[in-house]
Amino acid sequence: MTTPQNTMEKWERRTEWPLAGVALLFLAAYAVDVLIRPHGTGADITRAVTAVSWSLFIADYLVRLGLARNRWRWFYRHLFDLAIVVLPLLRPLQLLRLVTLITVMQRAVGNAIRGRVVMYTVAGAVLLVFVASLAVLESERGQPEAHITHFGQALWWSITTITTVGYGDLTPVTATGRVIAVLLMIGGISLVGSITATLASWIVQRVSDEDAAANMVTTEHIGRLLAEIADLRGEIAQMREEGRRSSGQPPPA
Amino acid sequence: MTTPQNTMEKWERRTEWPLAGVALLFLAAYAVDVLIRPHGTGADITRAVTAVSWSLFIADYLVRLGLARNRWRWFYRHLFDLAIVVLPLLRPLQLLRLVTLITVMQRAVGNAIRGRVVMYTVAGAVLLVFVASLAVLESERGQPEAHITHFGQALWWSITTITTVGYGDLTPVTATGRVIAVLLMIGGISLVGSITATLASWIVQRVSDEDAAANMVTTEHIGRLLAEIADLRGEIAQMREEGRRSSGQPPPA
Amino acid sequence: MTTPQNTMEKWERRTEWPLAGVALLFLAAYAVDVLIRPHGTGADITRAVTAVSWSLFIADYLVRLGLARNRWRWFYRHLFDLAIVVLPLLRPLQLLRLVTLITVMQRAVGNAIRGRVVMYTVAGAVLLVFVASLAVLESERGQPEAHITHFGQALWWSITTITTVGYGDLTPVTATGRVIAVLLMIGGISLVGSITATLASWIVQRVSDEDAAANMVTTEHIGRLLAEIADLRGEIAQMREEGRRSSGQPPPA
Amino acid sequence: MTTPQNTMEKWERRTEWPLAGVALLFLAAYAVDVLIRPHGTGADITRAVTAVSWSLFIADYLVRLGLARNRWRWFYRHLFDLAIVVLPLLRPLQLLRLVTLITVMQRAVGNAIRGRVVMYTVAGAVLLVFVASLAVLESERGQPEAHITHFGQALWWSITTITTVGYGDLTPVTATGRVIAVLLMIGGISLVGSITATLASWIVQRVSDEDAAANMVTTEHIGRLLAEIADLRGEIAQMREEGRRSSGQPPPA
Repeated sequence: MTTPQNTMEKWERRTEWPLAGVALLFLAAYAVDVLIRPHGTGADITRAVTAVSWSLFIADYLVRLGLARNRWRWFYRHLFDLAIVVLPLLRPLQLLRLVTLITVMQRAVGNAIRGRVVMYTVAGAVLLVFVASLAVLESERGQPEAHITHFGQALWWSITTITTVGYGDLTPVTATGRVIAVLLMIGGISLVGSITATLASWIVQRVSDEDAAANMVTTEHIGRLLAEIADLRGEIAQMREEGRRSSGQPPPA
Repeated sequence: MTTPQNTMEKWERRTEWPLAGVALLFLAAYAVDVLIRPHGTGADITRAVTAVSWSLFIADYLVRLGLARNRWRWFYRHLFDLAIVVLPLLRPLQLLRLVTLITVMQRAVGNAIRGRVVMYTVAGAVLLVFVASLAVLESERGQPEAHITHFGQALWWSITTITTVGYGDLTPVTATGRVIAVLLMIGGISLVGSITATLASWIVQRVSDEDAAANMVTTEHIGRLLAEIADLRGEIAQMREEGRRSSGQPPPA
Repeated sequence: MTTPQNTMEKWERRTEWPLAGVALLFLAAYAVDVLIRPHGTGADITRAVTAVSWSLFIADYLVRLGLARNRWRWFYRHLFDLAIVVLPLLRPLQLLRLVTLITVMQRAVGNAIRGRVVMYTVAGAVLLVFVASLAVLESERGQPEAHITHFGQALWWSITTITTVGYGDLTPVTATGRVIAVLLMIGGISLVGSITATLASWIVQRVSDEDAAANMVTTEHIGRLLAEIADLRGEIAQMREEGRRSSGQPPPA
Repeated sequence: MTTPQNTMEKWERRTEWPLAGVALLFLAAYAVDVLIRPHGTGADITRAVTAVSWSLFIADYLVRLGLARNRWRWFYRHLFDLAIVVLPLLRPLQLLRLVTLITVMQRAVGNAIRGRVVMYTVAGAVLLVFVASLAVLESERGQPEAHITHFGQALWWSITTITTVGYGDLTPVTATGRVIAVLLMIGGISLVGSITATLASWIVQRVSDEDAAANMVTTEHIGRLLAEIADLRGEIAQMREEGRRSSGQPPPA
């Protein structure tokens, strides 16, 4: 009795980890391609890994489209997935699948909301800096007037950008480089926001714990009220019993 | 029985959307004027659109002044509206009317306060970057020592400024350009503040939900207390009934 | 029966506003001195205003020292006041007295804590930018390799610094200029912090209002509980009355 | 009956302050070494102080390893301690011991959580700026193309970096200098985050105090409810007594 919906869920659950692995291979091939710029066999291998992983992403998209109960609706609601699969420019967004890998670390951090926010923020910032460094290096180094011509510079520039320090000793000159910079800046504002928000939440909680310990009403107070009322009912029941006995009435059934 | 106050409200409700449309035309004409710098007929059209939309804003101001119950008080309290209508320098503030258009998106986001804050922040930041890029380009490109001479550079500079990254590879050299920069910086601080605040509120709420589930007093507890007391009253009523019956008294009227 | 302590308080209350006015004059003389660099009579006037206001600050310090019950303790506890009065470098800190003037605006904002935080933040930031621009201009313009040589540049540099944008198109080269820059940066971090914190507090409150409306326990609930218990006591009193009447007992005195 | 665990705790408690003192000497020797670059006897002294303090850190590590109940587990869990002791690059992390000294200031601030956050933030930022200035100066000044060649410049650069202003008038050119810059940026984001979070917590608390004073349920309300119920029980007890007396029953044992 497997409905199409169930099959879809099963497919997504089963392919989650393998596809995260494929995304990791995809990232490794991209890094090798940009950093080592292999020739001959090396180049063939990275090209092959890239092609295979891309095919797998396309295959996953097609299988999910095939499994959808209402294909037009699924297609309409997953236009973003299509864009990531089809457009070369959005290629790096396949790396969002690596979020699945972050969930492994979650075991160490536990389920506390603040721990998870910090983990996603740090992991996301590291991944963003690394991928942005690769992408900006690939886009800039061909330009004659470029400032960013090797990976160390790209990494340095990415970090000064994501922290919103922005020395300006190195700046991208190509349009692609500037689009990457804008993504890093948005990432930076989110990074600052996340860390501040986590700290604020922690301080607010600690302060309110200090304050509230003394005069906050808890379920314990309600418990005491209920116990008092129960005692009262007990006493009234006893009194009714006494009244009945003194007037010679029989106890109720 | 339409009082002047009612007429005023009706006018403002009815002109809200048309005037937002006029502001959009005004922005389009401004963008075309700065970006394409049309000659001949093109220039005539943008000049006409600008003139017509401006006249409409002035007409709206005059109608509202006419409808006001106490004109001097209305005039005194709406000096800012007058300034926006009369001073060419404050012209772009007419675009505040575009906020009306943002309310369309509100249907998608719902009424949740955080969703609305994010929506206004993102829409406001995008509009501010776009208008500031146009304005800085118009003010700078005439200068011989200017760094910002085409729209891509203006956009890049605006974004590095609003995110407070501030590389300094491009900086405005005219007084107008620097006033625009200050507005962008204020916008940037608000942008960072909004995003951080929204995140902080979200984390604070999630954490307090986790904490509070266990020992917070809710109306449910109060309901249980009230039920207990109602039971008690029932028992006492029964006891009175028994007492009355045992002493031969008639029930109360 | 005026104790020394009372006299001290009276003195401080009475001199608060006049000394804020003196601080304003002091600031005006400083601004004129730096911006106009007057010669002859003009220079004499600004020098006179500076000297008189300084004398008044010293006089205020001495009077308060004289009024103190325990002079050594007062002296020890007001070393900071002494430093501001004696050291020329700390001269601008006399402007902290202008905070008294800000309290005038408080009437417009009301007593709401958020309104007051925003008011002090904005007023403090504007005053800091203005005074820092004057001070950096005075310190830098004498240097041959200085970037900041007129007030417009000083203002532009102050604003890019306090917003932490930091283009770096203009930077101070003297030690004094850099000390001023550090104060501006500290002011900038506080500015961003204040605005973010105010927004966060507002969102947290709005969200918790939305959430809490439904199931938060208020004093109204407690009132209902108390009314229920009062009714219960009334019924029991009536029952006791009935019991007494049926057994022929007299009512209690 | 001193178990190994107890001996370990005793050792750590007793060596906490002396080792913080050694870390201070270590910092002093490092500062003298970088700033004065002593020759002859001076150089011998700083080298001796550095060597002795390092030996003491190693001795402390070995003693703790010897005292551990389960040495392999202790070794495995304190790999970070080993790294700080063995690797010259991680040498400055010994200064984390100075946190012990900060606890002295805690007496002035009290135990309030916000006071402590501010104290650690300010003390940590000052220490980070000082050590980073020394380290960047040592690493940069040997380079021919370096911008940072004396301590004033190093300090100025550190402060512009930690506040995320980032003028870019001075930037590190060596890999070590850039690693130090990244640590400063991370420190800067934490600094902004801490100050914002502390302010936000303060405003949230003040606002909620204002709001809550009127209609928040406190333990006082619960106290009133309990008193009401106690009165009720008293009345019922009296009624039972009257019932007993009127029917000639003896009082209960």
